[in-house]
Amino acid sequence: MAVSKAEMEAFFRDHFPQAELIIEELGDKIATIRKHIEFKHLRPGGTVSGPTMMELADAALYVTILNEIGLVGLAVTTNLNINFLNKPSAEKDLIAECKLIKVGKALIIGDVYLYSEGNEQPVAHAVGTYSIPPKR
Amino acid sequence: MAVSKAEMEAFFRDHFPQAELIIEELGDKIATIRKHIEFKHLRPGGTVSGPTMMELADAALYVTILNEIGLVGLAVTTNLNINFLNKPSAEKDLIAECKLIKVGKALIIGDVYLYSEGNEQPVAHAVGTYSIPPKR
Amino acid sequence: MAVSKAEMEAFFRDHFPQAELIIEELGDKIATIRKHIEFKHLRPGGTVSGPTMMELADAALYVTILNEIGLVGLAVTTNLNINFLNKPSAEKDLIAECKLIKVGKALIIGDVYLYSEGNEQPVAHAVGTYSIPPKR
Amino acid sequence: MAVSKAEMEAFFRDHFPQAELIIEELGDKIATIRKHIEFKHLRPGGTVSGPTMMELADAALYVTILNEIGLVGLAVTTNLNINFLNKPSAEKDLIAECKLIKVGKALIIGDVYLYSEGNEQPVAHAVGTYSIPPKR
Repeated sequence: MAVSKAEMEAFFRDHFPQAELIIEELGDKIATIRKHIEFKHLRPGGTVSGPTMMELADAALYVTILNEIGLVGLAVTTNLNINFLNKPSAEKDLIAECKLIKVGKALIIGDVYLYSEGNEQPVAHAVGTYSIPPKR
Repeated sequence: MAVSKAEMEAFFRDHFPQAELIIEELGDKIATIRKHIEFKHLRPGGTVSGPTMMELADAALYVTILNEIGLVGLAVTTNLNINFLNKPSAEKDLIAECKLIKVGKALIIGDVYLYSEGNEQPVAHAVGTYSIPPKR
Repeated sequence: MAVSKAEMEAFFRDHFPQAELIIEELGDKIATIRKHIEFKHLRPGGTVSGPTMMELADAALYVTILNEIGLVGLAVTTNLNINFLNKPSAEKDLIAECKLIKVGKALIIGDVYLYSEGNEQPVAHAVGTYSIPPKR
Repeated sequence: MAVSKAEMEAFFRDHFPQAELIIEELGDKIATIRKHIEFKHLRPGGTVSGPTMMELADAALYVTILNEIGLVGLAVTTNLNINFLNKPSAEKDLIAECKLIKVGKALIIGDVYLYSEGNEQPVAHAVGTYSIPPKR
């Protein structure tokens, strides 16, 4: 079911143009995604907004899941739990590293660490569940 | 510490212009917030994007907490757990109803239900924790 | 699908004898459960252990779900998120008030507040998801 | 602040005798804990109960945190989020692998995978937050 980086980026440009993601790596149940941080993503105090991080965590899960099940676009998030760990840098891209920890028929669960590029301390950690509609 | 609706909206316009919130009600440890849904918040299939809902849940918690502790702007989200329950309507505003369930010295925890206006079935439910920095 | 208190208690005695629950109320998507606190549930410092609260929250969800779908016993917990809010009393029973917030075909989600009897400040709040296996 | 395995086991025997943990490994912000599964931990259908897994995840976090901050015993769980991934074996010990992902002054957050011994697919994954009371 693996998808090429170019196909995945084209799928996101078509379906989620506002996400503006760069696919860095797509592997077996893992993916690394980059998001370029711009002024609109910032909060006072020189940091990246929480919703920007939540959106990236959710998108990283979605990319990793689509790479596993194919570009069907039918998976929907049912739960996301995120812990904010350290203040992200306003001047660095955010990098999301996602790993699927369960691939079931009905539910897929993954784990995401977010980093400000070049810093090995994660800025956030999320766990998300996607529901896969039954095939007809 | 209670804040007027006009003060709270001014605070948000200054600090979080992109949030575009309308404060419907501010009470003792409760608040109701409205977000007008526009094309940029939608997903294919005529629904509101998950990140739009996560952002609104986080903002509703922040409004309710600031109304409790004053417009200090120093509370930071440490955890958000959100369950997506039903598909929101693309044509209705989202309404967030927040209630604080613990107001401690260091941590404040609240509960948020999100609704598509006019529908009593919630579209999402979130629980969030904010950390309050120690006073000097 | 509603079940009587006596049937529900008998079901629990048979299947989960260690849970030792008393069903206080069973209603439409709601239930109230009592757990008698004994020495074995305590922690140093005169409080109830976290796992005792987690077990009660999970059991309260299960009771409320079985009252909705019937005593089929096939629902399984897929996610539990719990926030510990206040120190429970070592000398009071724990009371769990559960409400289902989504009853879908595949997933049921509920919300639980735990109280030390007689105190209106909750000691914990949990949100849990159960998965319902497809009917054959 | 590192603690020997024998000291940690003695601390747990004294303070949490019911936990019955075996410390397999204690390292820098990591720990591996084993719990011997007995009849009392089982559920109908030949599996380990959810509360047994929640208790082990919480204990594994506590061990790893005490190894980092010393055997002060004052850290308290504020949040635990657990996903149940696969059915555990009734005949195998449970192994918990914990890693701290943030060590702050007020909050410590860790990540735990639980396994049935000998199976590389995790049976559960938890993320927990402990609050550290301020030093006087």
